[in-house]
Amino acid sequence: MPLQDLIYILDLLGTLVFAISGVVAAVERKFDLVGAFIIGFVTALGGGTTRDVLMGATPVNWMLHEEYLGIVALAMILCYLFYPRLSHIRRSLFIFDSIGLGLFTILGFQKAMIAELSIPIALMLGIVSAVFGGVIRDVLTNQVPLIFRKEIYALASLAGGLLYWLGSLLEVNTALNALISICVVVLIRSMAVAYGWESPFLPLGRKEH
Amino acid sequence: MPLQDLIYILDLLGTLVFAISGVVAAVERKFDLVGAFIIGFVTALGGGTTRDVLMGATPVNWMLHEEYLGIVALAMILCYLFYPRLSHIRRSLFIFDSIGLGLFTILGFQKAMIAELSIPIALMLGIVSAVFGGVIRDVLTNQVPLIFRKEIYALASLAGGLLYWLGSLLEVNTALNALISICVVVLIRSMAVAYGWESPFLPLGRKEH
Amino acid sequence: MPLQDLIYILDLLGTLVFAISGVVAAVERKFDLVGAFIIGFVTALGGGTTRDVLMGATPVNWMLHEEYLGIVALAMILCYLFYPRLSHIRRSLFIFDSIGLGLFTILGFQKAMIAELSIPIALMLGIVSAVFGGVIRDVLTNQVPLIFRKEIYALASLAGGLLYWLGSLLEVNTALNALISICVVVLIRSMAVAYGWESPFLPLGRKEH
Repeated sequence: MPLQDLIYILDLLGTLVFAISGVVAAVERKFDLVGAFIIGFVTALGGGTTRDVLMGATPVNWMLHEEYLGIVALAMILCYLFYPRLSHIRRSLFIFDSIGLGLFTILGFQKAMIAELSIPIALMLGIVSAVFGGVIRDVLTNQVPLIFRKEIYALASLAGGLLYWLGSLLEVNTALNALISICVVVLIRSMAVAYGWESPFLPLGRKEH
Repeated sequence: MPLQDLIYILDLLGTLVFAISGVVAAVERKFDLVGAFIIGFVTALGGGTTRDVLMGATPVNWMLHEEYLGIVALAMILCYLFYPRLSHIRRSLFIFDSIGLGLFTILGFQKAMIAELSIPIALMLGIVSAVFGGVIRDVLTNQVPLIFRKEIYALASLAGGLLYWLGSLLEVNTALNALISICVVVLIRSMAVAYGWESPFLPLGRKEH
Repeated sequence: MPLQDLIYILDLLGTLVFAISGVVAAVERKFDLVGAFIIGFVTALGGGTTRDVLMGATPVNWMLHEEYLGIVALAMILCYLFYPRLSHIRRSLFIFDSIGLGLFTILGFQKAMIAELSIPIALMLGIVSAVFGGVIRDVLTNQVPLIFRKEIYALASLAGGLLYWLGSLLEVNTALNALISICVVVLIRSMAVAYGWESPFLPLGRKEH
């Protein structure tokens, strides 16, 4: 399978899993059909949209690719059919969610590099692409964004971006480089869950007590 | 009256009613003068602004039309003068709010079509134009966006957009087409209130119990 | 020191103080390292970013100036080193925060004027530049934006913008004009704190009781 096709399929899969997490969050808060669709949509596509708007890459990507609307619709159908069992499936979804996290990081990084932005900015845009969909989902459902608190999530995205950058410095083959970076993101996330790793904090308050 | 003038007047009226709903929400949460102005502004113009930013139609529309600032100022004056009676007037405002919902949907749809975006994307941008002002209002006042939950609101916008699209396929005269679509939006909203229609949900949790 | 350098230094100082307020808010809500960085970043740069996105001045400013990333990193280091004493330092930070408020207002106003937007729109973009970073910080930490309620904050920004506009009408030397406007913003904020001034409200509810 050519690299471009593989990336395309992973992109759609990542989008689907992100959309499912949005639809589930919306339905659990008793949003209606359109609300569930919109939350699924912004969760899946909000990160890339934020990146595109900040870069001035407009009309944003999903406006030129209707299939993303279909992916969000598919997420709703899957939620309708399988929700009671989705809590079990979630563990399997975790792997796709992590693949999506890694892939979106790299796609964001690449897009920034193509636009000739600097490395630190490109790393930042990689993280934005990967995590801001979830941030917007949490804002629209009136919650403190989980991503900032509970999981090694944005840090895994940063690690994947850094690794991909190093690989490109060492002129590693692009496909291999992307594969390794995504695997490391999945590995970090899996180990964080397995070993109960918590995100590091700035240890501010401690000195006060 | 020429069509363009009618649309312009309806646009200003819709903007005014949306702004009033924002100013009232802000004042009821004890925002100060500037806060009330900003919330009124984003409620009235946030939907079209989101659409323009996503499309890359910048500077966004209201930057080129100062009269919108005046409309928001007028909304504040009207709130100051008539607030105690606004709860009664609200029923009359409902009709303008629904007209605004329908009109903004169609204006968003048209703008997307002119930019040669696809039909599903244009329908989506119509809904965004019509409902995202209220979404931003609710986010800034720290509430779960009502629009996703309580009313046949986004669905009425979708229905209006679909009907307008069908009309344009059938080559109905543009003015007549817009008029019919707006009337249907107003009708759906009125019947939803009259008959206590609730938005349909994805029936997820039910199977669990 | 040439004017351009002075503005540059004040810009970095204002950014630093805004970033510190974001990092402190994030850490007090137990956000992790990346979360604290992002909240610091959006607090310091969210206002100018919103302005740039609305104007279509993309890629937004900070993408072309990596030093802003360094400023946010510096804010985190300073918080790490000095947090227990930051509550005392806050009073000293207040002056820089007010300088930042005034300066960002004027920079936003100027940028809008250069883009040939109208005066009211430019005043609005000045306020957006100065206050929307804090608004985004409060939204992401799930709070009603303080700026709309508690302080003479947006009003001080508006006053500074108006004064700067008057000065430019009277053809006051630009450096002097900016200096006077910033001083007035600092003065208004200081007097508001000293005398317990509250922001004026639209007196709606009163008539009802």
